[in-house]
Amino acid sequence: MRIDLNADAGESFGPWTLGADEALCQTVTSISIACGFHAGDPMVLRETLRLARRAGVSVGAHPSFPDRQGFGRRKMHISARELEAMVLYQVSAVAGMAHAEGLPLRHVKPHGALFHLVMHDDDAADGFVRAAAATDQGRCLVGHGGSALERAAARAGIRFVREAYMDRHYEADGSLTSRERPDALITDPSHAAAQAMNIVVHGRIRVRDRSRELSVQAETLCVHSDTPGAPEIARAVRAALEGAGVQVAAF
Amino acid sequence: MRIDLNADAGESFGPWTLGADEALCQTVTSISIACGFHAGDPMVLRETLRLARRAGVSVGAHPSFPDRQGFGRRKMHISARELEAMVLYQVSAVAGMAHAEGLPLRHVKPHGALFHLVMHDDDAADGFVRAAAATDQGRCLVGHGGSALERAAARAGIRFVREAYMDRHYEADGSLTSRERPDALITDPSHAAAQAMNIVVHGRIRVRDRSRELSVQAETLCVHSDTPGAPEIARAVRAALEGAGVQVAAF
Amino acid sequence: MRIDLNADAGESFGPWTLGADEALCQTVTSISIACGFHAGDPMVLRETLRLARRAGVSVGAHPSFPDRQGFGRRKMHISARELEAMVLYQVSAVAGMAHAEGLPLRHVKPHGALFHLVMHDDDAADGFVRAAAATDQGRCLVGHGGSALERAAARAGIRFVREAYMDRHYEADGSLTSRERPDALITDPSHAAAQAMNIVVHGRIRVRDRSRELSVQAETLCVHSDTPGAPEIARAVRAALEGAGVQVAAF
Amino acid sequence: MRIDLNADAGESFGPWTLGADEALCQTVTSISIACGFHAGDPMVLRETLRLARRAGVSVGAHPSFPDRQGFGRRKMHISARELEAMVLYQVSAVAGMAHAEGLPLRHVKPHGALFHLVMHDDDAADGFVRAAAATDQGRCLVGHGGSALERAAARAGIRFVREAYMDRHYEADGSLTSRERPDALITDPSHAAAQAMNIVVHGRIRVRDRSRELSVQAETLCVHSDTPGAPEIARAVRAALEGAGVQVAAF
Repeated sequence: MRIDLNADAGESFGPWTLGADEALCQTVTSISIACGFHAGDPMVLRETLRLARRAGVSVGAHPSFPDRQGFGRRKMHISARELEAMVLYQVSAVAGMAHAEGLPLRHVKPHGALFHLVMHDDDAADGFVRAAAATDQGRCLVGHGGSALERAAARAGIRFVREAYMDRHYEADGSLTSRERPDALITDPSHAAAQAMNIVVHGRIRVRDRSRELSVQAETLCVHSDTPGAPEIARAVRAALEGAGVQVAAF
Repeated sequence: MRIDLNADAGESFGPWTLGADEALCQTVTSISIACGFHAGDPMVLRETLRLARRAGVSVGAHPSFPDRQGFGRRKMHISARELEAMVLYQVSAVAGMAHAEGLPLRHVKPHGALFHLVMHDDDAADGFVRAAAATDQGRCLVGHGGSALERAAARAGIRFVREAYMDRHYEADGSLTSRERPDALITDPSHAAAQAMNIVVHGRIRVRDRSRELSVQAETLCVHSDTPGAPEIARAVRAALEGAGVQVAAF
Repeated sequence: MRIDLNADAGESFGPWTLGADEALCQTVTSISIACGFHAGDPMVLRETLRLARRAGVSVGAHPSFPDRQGFGRRKMHISARELEAMVLYQVSAVAGMAHAEGLPLRHVKPHGALFHLVMHDDDAADGFVRAAAATDQGRCLVGHGGSALERAAARAGIRFVREAYMDRHYEADGSLTSRERPDALITDPSHAAAQAMNIVVHGRIRVRDRSRELSVQAETLCVHSDTPGAPEIARAVRAALEGAGVQVAAF
Repeated sequence: MRIDLNADAGESFGPWTLGADEALCQTVTSISIACGFHAGDPMVLRETLRLARRAGVSVGAHPSFPDRQGFGRRKMHISARELEAMVLYQVSAVAGMAHAEGLPLRHVKPHGALFHLVMHDDDAADGFVRAAAATDQGRCLVGHGGSALERAAARAGIRFVREAYMDRHYEADGSLTSRERPDALITDPSHAAAQAMNIVVHGRIRVRDRSRELSVQAETLCVHSDTPGAPEIARAVRAALEGAGVQVAAF
């Protein structure tokens, strides 16, 4: 058994810092780096890449709608044609900077409102896949199993990596518990570790109200860098998995 | 004898258009494309790259200070370390998008206030060269002969291409006539053609007040895309050069 | 009989120009000035205000979603609470600059995707009205008759000015013909003049396919500054109206 | 004896927070609020104004160069004419939003690189004063005693408020110790309190190397909101001053 642990990173901007990149890179095995459209700037990007190199963590790009103030979480109505150009610009910028640091860019994972769009909209997903793979057909895409993005990746012959969450509750219909509910997040490290173990070992997730279990397949588990106690959560998850003989390594 | 003709391109943004890219690409042999910091956006970038491919024109990146409102013409005090990261981000974005269109990115030419900075400041020039060549040692740098940028390129072992202007007057000290003077620009196509011929055939430029001639070496002649009548100027220059047996081709 | 003629203005930005403000201000009686979020910058704003003062034209603010690249025409999902703050910021900036030029800010008209939102969404419309009137209860709002914005203005006791278009076709359901159709715009000045006369004199609009006439009430007629030939259209409309004894004056 | 204590505020942006506004507003008597150009956004602005109203703190605007990534600390070469428009836009936005919250905008204090510019450049200072006072001649300007800004305020007949620092060392020539030195800041609350007492009671500041005392006049003492322990510093300063019978109140 084998699993990747991933976190978002590089979400500081100019004078403002966000996240716990330094601590998380000690535990996770891959990071998705903000590309400058919702967070990140060239200085932050370079420092994050250097941190990943020192920590031996695999790197990916985390492109977004162009919306720093809304942190890429406000949906924007953008055509598939423009979406493709916008994602290609971002992925190219990060890929080039990674290359300059001697790192390959292994994956692309959409951020925020763009993530939700390409999980559900086939045209947008096709544009996203074209942009992500335009300069490297070997790059992976990361997202929900069964999503529009997975289908678009399959059409394009690009590897898709299914992701589940160690720090979020799920509802009975398979969706994530809305962030508007106070219990959307799992912040107790041992709870997160139990959920991670259940996903990796049994392929199952117990839903928020404990009424049933969902079947799930995942090659990577995500911890959100802005979840309170994210580094402790990641450490507890990794310790539990390794204690059970699961190999924790980049996909 | 052989010379490249170059123009800036891709300087539209969102709803706003600028320049005569379509017309200029019929005549020049290389273009320097705005990277999104002073002008250009992902849609404009892609369209400009496709135009260059159709026209068979060589492409380069035209990075700038981050200042759309000032069109990159306002000097900003930025450290060499930050300048390097900022240029690397821009060059990477354009290089990746060019690659996606099947085009190599052949050169990097600084824009506006950044151009003036790296012509004179050795630290800034070193940072600029590192950024421009980080992902491709074969990429050329373009600028004034004898500049800090030329020295930095030599230190790094990167090819430097000397540029002269077909549409600007020069002063006796070798500098360009300030844009604050009404006669800074050469807008008469036959005058521009005469200056171009003098540069290419005799290695000389007659200064604005006609008091003397400067000695000059250039591998490329620039026409500014916002000079009135730029396409006509470029056509007259090319016709004169070709009529004299000069080969007009990308460096 | 009396009517106002209005146009958008101040939609240039930095090095880029857009619209025919100088020409239109010779003919229209009020302008709606971009506030810096979709177009305009402090220099453009000040020049536009001075132009309005010289031409004796009434001024209003034209706030937008924060989206220069999309020219405020891409819908963004923003809460009513944030929308209110964002509009108040823009209206305050323009009102202060107008005051510094000795001009009162008479009206507020939403732009682009924000216009469409507040025509249909009651919560958004309430936020918009609060923001527009926060610093001056005597300021008017401009929009479609029968819209959510009109109802919100009525609830707040703020004057609402109904607008119709001299340069756009209407459909049988009262909506504007989509800009995606080639015949969305009326660019023939005499056609625009006929539509304007029909609106002002008879309170009627003949729909695009000429199958019927709609009943309409309007206190102002809009010409879009980016409609081809906008100044000629405005002049033909004004001449026709004045020839029929209609008083053309700011509301 | 009477003194104002001031702090910068509203320097969060979108998802990123900065400063200790809530804690500082319990102790200081006036705040200078970021206007959206180096920090702040309409939501942050409104929340900061409401915080000031609840705390009974006097409010001013803190305009900046347009540079979020550099936090307004990178010098930009901008003409006095453009500087005036840019400051007027910012001050108008904050003044209007303050008015909507029932608060008058009492002062304007330049931020970062713009502060340094208008302390030394007479043309820039004149433009700044015109912009700050354009909509309210009773608004104060805040800055160094003896600066270009003070002279410009005097020429315009606008009240100028001299500021000194409770949390920064001074050099023998009267300048602030550069932030590049490790001992630029005074972070020990009792040290800051001693410096504040010396300024207010004796009109003197002991320089960093303790070699001499400078003579100083100040109507307000500034604590930087990003100085480590800023709220504790402000509390110690206020307690010391009030213990000595000094009235701490807005200017």
